[in-house]
Amino acid sequence: MDFKDVMIQRRSVNFFDPEKDVPDPLLREMIELGSKAPSGFNLQPWSLMVLKDRASKEKLLKLAWNQTKIVEAPVVMIVLADRENWMEGHPTVERNFKEMAASGAEIEEQRSWILEAAKKLYGSSEERKIAFACKNTGFFAMSLMLAAKSLGLDTHPMDGFDIDGTKEAFNIPDRFWIPLLLAVGYFNPEAVLEAPKWRKSYDDIVVSFP
Amino acid sequence: MDFKDVMIQRRSVNFFDPEKDVPDPLLREMIELGSKAPSGFNLQPWSLMVLKDRASKEKLLKLAWNQTKIVEAPVVMIVLADRENWMEGHPTVERNFKEMAASGAEIEEQRSWILEAAKKLYGSSEERKIAFACKNTGFFAMSLMLAAKSLGLDTHPMDGFDIDGTKEAFNIPDRFWIPLLLAVGYFNPEAVLEAPKWRKSYDDIVVSFP
Repeated sequence: MDFKDVMIQRRSVNFFDPEKDVPDPLLREMIELGSKAPSGFNLQPWSLMVLKDRASKEKLLKLAWNQTKIVEAPVVMIVLADRENWMEGHPTVERNFKEMAASGAEIEEQRSWILEAAKKLYGSSEERKIAFACKNTGFFAMSLMLAAKSLGLDTHPMDGFDIDGTKEAFNIPDRFWIPLLLAVGYFNPEAVLEAPKWRKSYDDIVVSFP
Repeated sequence: MDFKDVMIQRRSVNFFDPEKDVPDPLLREMIELGSKAPSGFNLQPWSLMVLKDRASKEKLLKLAWNQTKIVEAPVVMIVLADRENWMEGHPTVERNFKEMAASGAEIEEQRSWILEAAKKLYGSSEERKIAFACKNTGFFAMSLMLAAKSLGLDTHPMDGFDIDGTKEAFNIPDRFWIPLLLAVGYFNPEAVLEAPKWRKSYDDIVVSFP
């Protein structure tokens, strides 16, 4: 599918066809394509909980302002952003060094330089921890939404939910922030898709502060 | 350009051709295509400072760990994430309501509901303010990087810079966080692009917490 078509046809759809499942291989393809997103020092501080069963979705529904798309969409993802995914010893951080070494990089010096830089940039305040986690997971989530559209799937990113309640209900470790929930499925053909919403223009976006 | 090709061919390139400018109409197209990104309540809390002149780029270079791509790339963007872009009276918030009304929506009731919800979700702590700003601006920046690739441009997102120093040097109001700098241009044909880095697989990304 053409890139520009994907960008324009990706819409946050409110109504999903509850009868139409997302096949597992397609979901896998969507996630692996989305995972091409970049991240600071390639740390990839993102994870997904994938909910498909009715009981889990109903538990989430109550924590998410009763947004019916949570039970209508065949798949709902709890998108997780790891605020500690820059620390020495964190499994993903260590895995990244291991993969760098495996690809032939000389990591001895780089390792301590990266760990120091990451600690300063991402770990030196609570604000920086959350900015690191949410910015990079934002890259990933955007890639996921576009990858979904390119594979014929529709999505809806949701902010209206109780972060702490969701963490408690789903045993999510405290280091994670939940920047969004993502409904994935097929647009309900009986619903009407609204016209695209207003977007800021180039002249709105580009600013200067003389 | 095919979507999947864009996803795979988008790479963070370290070396830009300093002789090859980005034409203004192409930059505009990149930004307007990137602006199709979604955001919570369509608030679009993102802005860009676009640096092209040597003096501005040299000023930024000193604040950004002397990363030479800042002066080599023809365009460097300071990507801004607005932590207050959910408050009543904020120009973008009010513009969004105005555009909703212009498109025929009944906004009287929605207005107060959205303002209350946004205040609770995005404004009830410093962490939430920054999560809101960085997550949504992450969506936008990812869209920008992909839009750039689809138009034949290359990019490099950078985290290695002094946020406070950059805000001071460029008169950036305090409500903005700077989640990244983005170099934009053309890959230097004399440089060698490294093999793609490791990415987490589906099985690494999908987690559960029994």
